[in-house]
Amino acid sequence: MNFAKLSIREFVEKVSDKSPTPGGGAVSALVGALAASLIEMVANLTLSRSDYSDWHAEMERIVSTMQEKRTILLDCIDLDVKAFDQVMSAYRLPKNTVEEKEKRSQAIQESLKQAARVPYETCRHLKEILKQAVAVAQWGNINAISDVVSAAELAEGAFNSAKANVLINLKSLKDEKFKENLLHELKTFTGEVEGALKSVREITAQRADIRV
Amino acid sequence: MNFAKLSIREFVEKVSDKSPTPGGGAVSALVGALAASLIEMVANLTLSRSDYSDWHAEMERIVSTMQEKRTILLDCIDLDVKAFDQVMSAYRLPKNTVEEKEKRSQAIQESLKQAARVPYETCRHLKEILKQAVAVAQWGNINAISDVVSAAELAEGAFNSAKANVLINLKSLKDEKFKENLLHELKTFTGEVEGALKSVREITAQRADIRV
Repeated sequence: MNFAKLSIREFVEKVSDKSPTPGGGAVSALVGALAASLIEMVANLTLSRSDYSDWHAEMERIVSTMQEKRTILLDCIDLDVKAFDQVMSAYRLPKNTVEEKEKRSQAIQESLKQAARVPYETCRHLKEILKQAVAVAQWGNINAISDVVSAAELAEGAFNSAKANVLINLKSLKDEKFKENLLHELKTFTGEVEGALKSVREITAQRADIRV
Repeated sequence: MNFAKLSIREFVEKVSDKSPTPGGGAVSALVGALAASLIEMVANLTLSRSDYSDWHAEMERIVSTMQEKRTILLDCIDLDVKAFDQVMSAYRLPKNTVEEKEKRSQAIQESLKQAARVPYETCRHLKEILKQAVAVAQWGNINAISDVVSAAELAEGAFNSAKANVLINLKSLKDEKFKENLLHELKTFTGEVEGALKSVREITAQRADIRV
């Protein structure tokens, strides 16, 4: 399924129905794509202003990075749904014999790893998006500064949301080394995300007197 | 324009291009609709479990409220874009004579009020969504608890994002009474949003040991 082809209304309805997919992980990826798009828009609105020409090279780089991020994050919607469906399939495998039980347990463990990896990747991209938001808050077109605040606030919400989806999938995982690595990375990302959001808030308070 | 009819990919592209609409206000409304949908999904997943029957009446009420909220918030996307376009049109009115200047100034003030009202309404709905998230975190299907965390974290991000859009539009507004009222309401909402998010985090830490 390619969810990005659905209309917004269809997607919202698919989220709300009693099927568990698309769920929080998929929605986090979509919100990440929207946050990247807002930053890309502000970078574009800065490129169309000649009085910001000192920052045009930086804004071109940001446009290109955000295009890449939003493309990847739209793909993460599908990957997240697929990963969750595979966890469900693994749990439905037969468990009548010792061999079946072993096979089922392995399938569950493998599927949980992938179900943790996808929102982990979403978190990693969101952390990068928030770092770029700081540059756009500082050097972007002042007329669009509220859009940078929106991007940063939404990206932080999506980061926490995706993080919850990593954590829930790690819970039943037995590979301690895998868990430890992801939790360590997430901790680092969290610090970077909080720092970037704080910077965006401080810069916009200073440049435009907006205090969320 | 009915933005909810666009595909997700088309909408994301429209956000990212150099036109200032759809911007942060419109995206906040969409993320609000997505958060409402996630809560509705968890309420539906609770209704399909007979062992949660004590909470079925409450969950039915929540499904109905979330359906209403997501419908309203999808409409807010269009309202936000329209309000912003009217601010732009007002600024483009002629200002050659004293009469024209006066007319333009009035049009700007009126359009700014509407451009503040729409994200203010988005904030008000998001505050309600977050309150319902607390009930679903507490009494909803435990298997979908990470989706409630996602909904709450995304709703808080969307609230802050919409709030930034109210604040930016209030900045050039001269009607002090109007400003004061909206700022007072926003302050109350902010406290309620922070309290609800804190409750969702505490409940999910307790019920499922997830700590974002």
